[in-house]
Amino acid sequence: MSTFDLRLSTLRREYREGSLTPRKLIARLRDKAAALNPEFNLFIHLLTEEEIAPFVDRLEGHDPDSLPLYGIPFAIKDNIDLAGIETTAGCPAFAYTPDESATLVGQLIALGAIPLGKTNLDQFATGLNGTRSPYGKCRNSVHPGYPSGGSSAGSSLAVALGVASFALGTDTAGSGRVPAALNNLVGLKPTKGLLSTAGVVPACRTLDCVTFFTATAAEASELLALTARHDPRDAYSRRNPQWNAARAFGTPHAFRFGVPAQLEFAGCSESPALFAQTRALLEAAGGEAVEIDFQPFVEAAQLLYQGPWVGERYSVTGELMTTQPDAVLPVIRDVLAKAPGATAVELFRAQYRLQDLKTLCDASLDTLDFVLTPTYPRPVTLAELERDPIGPNSLLGYYTNFMNLLDYAAVAAPAGFMENGLPWGVTVFGRAFTDQYLLGVADLLQRRSGMRCVGGGEVDASPHGAAANDRMTVAVCGAHMQGLPLNRDLVARGARLVRATRTAPCYRLCALPASADGTRRPGMWRVADDGVGIAVEVWEMPSAEFGSFLATIPYPLGLGKVELSDGSWTAGFICEPYAVQSAEDISAFGGWRAWLDGRHLQAAPG
Amino acid sequence: MSTFDLRLSTLRREYREGSLTPRKLIARLRDKAAALNPEFNLFIHLLTEEEIAPFVDRLEGHDPDSLPLYGIPFAIKDNIDLAGIETTAGCPAFAYTPDESATLVGQLIALGAIPLGKTNLDQFATGLNGTRSPYGKCRNSVHPGYPSGGSSAGSSLAVALGVASFALGTDTAGSGRVPAALNNLVGLKPTKGLLSTAGVVPACRTLDCVTFFTATAAEASELLALTARHDPRDAYSRRNPQWNAARAFGTPHAFRFGVPAQLEFAGCSESPALFAQTRALLEAAGGEAVEIDFQPFVEAAQLLYQGPWVGERYSVTGELMTTQPDAVLPVIRDVLAKAPGATAVELFRAQYRLQDLKTLCDASLDTLDFVLTPTYPRPVTLAELERDPIGPNSLLGYYTNFMNLLDYAAVAAPAGFMENGLPWGVTVFGRAFTDQYLLGVADLLQRRSGMRCVGGGEVDASPHGAAANDRMTVAVCGAHMQGLPLNRDLVARGARLVRATRTAPCYRLCALPASADGTRRPGMWRVADDGVGIAVEVWEMPSAEFGSFLATIPYPLGLGKVELSDGSWTAGFICEPYAVQSAEDISAFGGWRAWLDGRHLQAAPG
Repeated sequence: MSTFDLRLSTLRREYREGSLTPRKLIARLRDKAAALNPEFNLFIHLLTEEEIAPFVDRLEGHDPDSLPLYGIPFAIKDNIDLAGIETTAGCPAFAYTPDESATLVGQLIALGAIPLGKTNLDQFATGLNGTRSPYGKCRNSVHPGYPSGGSSAGSSLAVALGVASFALGTDTAGSGRVPAALNNLVGLKPTKGLLSTAGVVPACRTLDCVTFFTATAAEASELLALTARHDPRDAYSRRNPQWNAARAFGTPHAFRFGVPAQLEFAGCSESPALFAQTRALLEAAGGEAVEIDFQPFVEAAQLLYQGPWVGERYSVTGELMTTQPDAVLPVIRDVLAKAPGATAVELFRAQYRLQDLKTLCDASLDTLDFVLTPTYPRPVTLAELERDPIGPNSLLGYYTNFMNLLDYAAVAAPAGFMENGLPWGVTVFGRAFTDQYLLGVADLLQRRSGMRCVGGGEVDASPHGAAANDRMTVAVCGAHMQGLPLNRDLVARGARLVRATRTAPCYRLCALPASADGTRRPGMWRVADDGVGIAVEVWEMPSAEFGSFLATIPYPLGLGKVELSDGSWTAGFICEPYAVQSAEDISAFGGWRAWLDGRHLQAAPG
Repeated sequence: MSTFDLRLSTLRREYREGSLTPRKLIARLRDKAAALNPEFNLFIHLLTEEEIAPFVDRLEGHDPDSLPLYGIPFAIKDNIDLAGIETTAGCPAFAYTPDESATLVGQLIALGAIPLGKTNLDQFATGLNGTRSPYGKCRNSVHPGYPSGGSSAGSSLAVALGVASFALGTDTAGSGRVPAALNNLVGLKPTKGLLSTAGVVPACRTLDCVTFFTATAAEASELLALTARHDPRDAYSRRNPQWNAARAFGTPHAFRFGVPAQLEFAGCSESPALFAQTRALLEAAGGEAVEIDFQPFVEAAQLLYQGPWVGERYSVTGELMTTQPDAVLPVIRDVLAKAPGATAVELFRAQYRLQDLKTLCDASLDTLDFVLTPTYPRPVTLAELERDPIGPNSLLGYYTNFMNLLDYAAVAAPAGFMENGLPWGVTVFGRAFTDQYLLGVADLLQRRSGMRCVGGGEVDASPHGAAANDRMTVAVCGAHMQGLPLNRDLVARGARLVRATRTAPCYRLCALPASADGTRRPGMWRVADDGVGIAVEVWEMPSAEFGSFLATIPYPLGLGKVELSDGSWTAGFICEPYAVQSAEDISAFGGWRAWLDGRHLQAAPG
């Protein structure tokens, strides 16, 4: 066993080979964690041998392939419940011992994963740096002059220092992304409601997300696919549309991504070049960069701490702050000081303002597959945080605070190292329910950058195909093409023309007999011999509109799969056998439009 | 011209025949409105001849078929802007004269409709009865002892008294439904965000909807289809999924509807029988009634006025209430008295509570097509409102207050008359973006009940088909059937089995060659001769999941239209011609499952 490589694929191989058992692994990891804790303060509570035994014992005698997460060690941020173990949220006076695990923790254990312990955090998950804890400050995994990032500080360290394969964080304002960037990790901040928050101490209950820290995007993709389920225990739980259910690897041939027209690096000398390098890498991979106005995102971000949303945090901590003010760290008291005075009217007005900004931001994203930003303008040092515990912390949230307010999914991905060795990272974010697609982009970044990942070397290529986002393409070959009568059925569904091309040279086209309303339409079908390339248009349409589009398509037509001239396949029009037998074969025209024009010429007097 | 029949179809016929012109009609309607106003107080401002002239003049010389709403007269609730005309919201001290019309008013005028005037309302749209206005009380259109209902009081009267073909109301708590029920009208309270609220004085901006009052559901359906558009001026505007874009007529063969297990009639002797009669009518039309727990709906309703949502109203009126308290009616001041004291923390807690209740209510609706309730427990009299302006008003909102908080669409439909002649009504409501489906149900109620509609006789049958809701059926004939390997692809998408049946006897079935992963699948295709009925299962699935489902289906299969043994058509699996030529014909087995069983028998030793 390598000392540090705890990636899922590595552990599985070693378990299968018999070179490792969960019992041996856990014993080593507990020793390692105990050795690291004095310096890094990553665990508030490392499970004792007695506490961890049941999770190990039950795997005894089982085949490593019997459970998807057989023997995979994970760490739990200490604002997430593990049954029978104290939850502190970083505040001893707040602590309680839950009878039941958080839904997600229960899911992971049921899948075979082994919880190692509860990790340190910025108190009440209020912070982005990892120093706001009575259980000690969390320094960076690589550079002692920097913080781990927070609030999911110990969770990021558990993965970065090779104590756990993955760790659970939470992310309201950036707590699952900032520590990922500072420690060369992938931080998945999923769409709100995809992972259950039942059994999680709320920060802002309308915004909170549970997150995964992993060495690679492929692992986060697998964990999300295994655990994104509707939870009746969580009123904010949402059903995952199935385009977002498949695991993500790689990205499509062509994609469009946004980049802020106004980039903020807070005077950093290295970050601009690191960001430009990532942008260039995506462009080289087939992406088209589009500059977008970032001002509405920045304004939305400011609402989180400068507006009445601190009232959500206060609704959790207010009683304690009133009865035992000294139990809460001074910096947290400062952040929440305004909360009790805010009125409902002020909150409604802030919600209106947010909705106005969301309209602008959504419009920016409408024709994009995702947006690329730095994860923070620049890293901040422990010394800076010592001098001013608020300002440098706020700087870290510049590119993260808006995300949950605007209901977007985001993945923080490693994107290089600074000269002093500190990891540096980017965030890819997009519309809700495009998590797996975004993980595919993060996977591409990890593979193409050639960066070493935590605990391993370069990230291996994956044999799987790319994940879909919330859009799909459809090849149309008849009356749905631009300028023809049924094109309105595409436009009304928010579709946009991607390209005009031809099918692979193995199709034939016929003109079907006129329907009841007198219109004629083509039928296209694949043949073994004697096929030609037929002119088609490829349109991109929201996946959610395909059902109603299908409803408009009469017998003998339907939607199946069509091969294009470049060898790729897309959804597209097909035709049932019976209809094509009796119809007029017009393949020689090479397309419906050419046939329409030809008929017109025949019919015209000259 | 009949004196009262202003239905769209009637006016169009008369315009085409030349027996009527917009100019003649408007002159008559203005006279009629002026004659009615002293008794009914329906108009705050009836447009003068000069003010109305431009809307009439521009139609001069145009063909009646040149515009969808050519010469259709409509009335505008006076919290909705008409450019150049004062908007009062029922409060003279609040009044202003807008430069621009509300987006929806502009749309209607552009479609050819003619605005007649601004109608009376409960001040700031805060009320459900129509007596809370300094511009006079609005009595009922039929019975002088009852109110018109409110807050869209004058708008309901304009249609009920035959002064306008349709009228615009607003509905936050029931203001577009209660007056519809009291005046034998259809009141469409669309899904939030479908009709623009730009240019509307907010009541609760997060909840407000603009509504249509019409004599028939078919007219409301047409108006919605013409005007439901995304509006960049309105941050709360939402895109209408295209399954909800088609006009609605009639309902499907079979449907499931909820009925409250606990019905509240406030001691009324007649309402229970009227409701039972409507329920029976829907059951006779093919509907299956399912009793649902109504308690969470009632609790959600109570949040609207007893919780911090009054803060939204106060954010509009607060300044005026502070500077000129006497400008606001005492009853409105009473309703909003608590608002300034509510804190942001209280509002967040109320929003959490609402989310908990919504989870319960959504679960009730999940397998239903709609829910049927009375529109109010019982009507209340003007005398009751005189004695107590709050209690009887609240009673009217029992079945309406929860609707926008829970994000449902609703249609109030006429459902009988009480012994004193007062109209009585029901509400059908359902998930967001099922408006056209709900209008189809209301249309069915109007046609089947044989009730006379306002201004006309019975409602004519329509030649159009039924509108879809947010679910679609798909006929599966192979590995997607219950118990077979790909059934998981249906279940993961929230699909449920509707029935097992056969196709019409005009299909053949083949076993396709094994795919790359070794699985075999059937292909089914329609034939002219020698067809058989193939065993299929019909599953119902959210329309939004069809795109990702299509993505899972490989060549040569696809989704088209399949005819079932009862002669109905549904979406279902089809197969491309090339594949079926070379495949093994298994039609004789009558279905995939029978063939699988047959193969097993052949392969089995005995």
